[in-house]
Amino acid sequence: MKFTKMHGCGNDYVYVNCFEETVKNPSETAKQVSDRHFGIGSDGLILICPSDKADFRMAMYNMDGSEGKMCGNGVRCIAKYVYDHHLTDKTRISLETLGGIKYLDLNIKDGKVDTVTVNMGAPILTPSKIPVSISKDRVINEPVEIDGNVWHLTCVSMGNPHAVVFVDDTASLKLEHIGPLFEKHPLFPEQVNTEFVHVIDRRTVDMRVWERGSGETLACGTGACATVMACILNDKTDKEVLVHLLGGDLLIRYDAENNTVFMTGPATEVFSGEIEL
Amino acid sequence: MKFTKMHGCGNDYVYVNCFEETVKNPSETAKQVSDRHFGIGSDGLILICPSDKADFRMAMYNMDGSEGKMCGNGVRCIAKYVYDHHLTDKTRISLETLGGIKYLDLNIKDGKVDTVTVNMGAPILTPSKIPVSISKDRVINEPVEIDGNVWHLTCVSMGNPHAVVFVDDTASLKLEHIGPLFEKHPLFPEQVNTEFVHVIDRRTVDMRVWERGSGETLACGTGACATVMACILNDKTDKEVLVHLLGGDLLIRYDAENNTVFMTGPATEVFSGEIEL
Repeated sequence: MKFTKMHGCGNDYVYVNCFEETVKNPSETAKQVSDRHFGIGSDGLILICPSDKADFRMAMYNMDGSEGKMCGNGVRCIAKYVYDHHLTDKTRISLETLGGIKYLDLNIKDGKVDTVTVNMGAPILTPSKIPVSISKDRVINEPVEIDGNVWHLTCVSMGNPHAVVFVDDTASLKLEHIGPLFEKHPLFPEQVNTEFVHVIDRRTVDMRVWERGSGETLACGTGACATVMACILNDKTDKEVLVHLLGGDLLIRYDAENNTVFMTGPATEVFSGEIEL
Repeated sequence: MKFTKMHGCGNDYVYVNCFEETVKNPSETAKQVSDRHFGIGSDGLILICPSDKADFRMAMYNMDGSEGKMCGNGVRCIAKYVYDHHLTDKTRISLETLGGIKYLDLNIKDGKVDTVTVNMGAPILTPSKIPVSISKDRVINEPVEIDGNVWHLTCVSMGNPHAVVFVDDTASLKLEHIGPLFEKHPLFPEQVNTEFVHVIDRRTVDMRVWERGSGETLACGTGACATVMACILNDKTDKEVLVHLLGGDLLIRYDAENNTVFMTGPATEVFSGEIEL
């Protein structure tokens, strides 16, 4: 199987061009290739497929073999792949995912995709839809006691549930300890991703993320979007914010008129290879 | 740069055939390719080079860019590479390393290398040469208090220092906690690798290893050799023992007549690829 290894802010997948390759058992293949010592090593497997509803279709499998709906870092890499490898010459493409059709704007530099802007859709603020078990219209700056401290939570769904808290410093946080206490808190019937955010100025924040089921990760696209929505809801930033993550930077813009979040970030091709499965 | 990813018991390196490729700055390249999210992902970089002293020469760089002397799992992979890729048709080869010239016997199955037997040299038992700060001829079953418990240490160098302790069960050990307390114990002026060993029968043991500077690893070839020497010195096993490690099995044989340890284990090619540096 020929493949290409790509990452977006360190969130790395094995990409397979299914216009040329056939992957018979993608779930098993994902488990095999994801192993970082015995396989190729990745956060999962992403297949780039033909679509009858959009320009391309993404099929995404996590390292445990489960199918994923959407991945902001992953769709940017697909955009880079299809343009740089001449599967399209369009700079605005549509991509079918299990999370719906996504629209991507490709920013070209020296004939190759440099960054990609993704329409991430509308933020969801209704607690029952996030879901978070609080009987209010919104969960903004809500005090909650966790591990003997009072944290102020702002909750947003970007298709998956996020709780955002503001801290004075992200580097000193012991996420291994505190992350699971948020993740499994009874307020969140489907668990939660938690963003720990330090506001630098009205256009810049630092963020670390604890993802449900994964622990701390280098980058989380929906988490960066949720973070900026929380910043705006708490009047801590303007509507366009650069989010520094451990794995790189994402520029998040909230278009209030259309109630839509746009994410712009890098996509990197690291190497190509061939593996016998 | 063309490369091949290989592993021996999960100890994985990026291998480059330097009969065809030139690596200008191997130390920097090792750091770059070893990163498991932004690079290829490996425990380091191994260059397969011509030698004027042996059939081939190994140049080995750890993930931090430092040069390594020897790696039992790595030399088995080199043996597989040079035979399977037709750089030699010999089944006994010599390999120049910074730890001296190593002699390798290739065990062939269906025209390819299946396992490799490595002459690991003589075990060193003199405390000052291991080094371990105990004024005795040997350190065998020596009681030492660590973390409030008395552990019985047997110390062996296989070119690097090892302390072996016997336990009732390896799976339940909290190595993250206890490993560093052995590693940095004042008895060991150059720190120590520690093997935690459960003897199953006189020909089979389970082993987990805490490596100095690395933490727990999937496999340690010299550690498996030290373990079997400690088993023999404490009359717990015969002289040929199968060692179960987290990453696979190694068969260790002590040739008492020649005071030499032989290690036999697998070598696996996972994929080949090309990266722009």
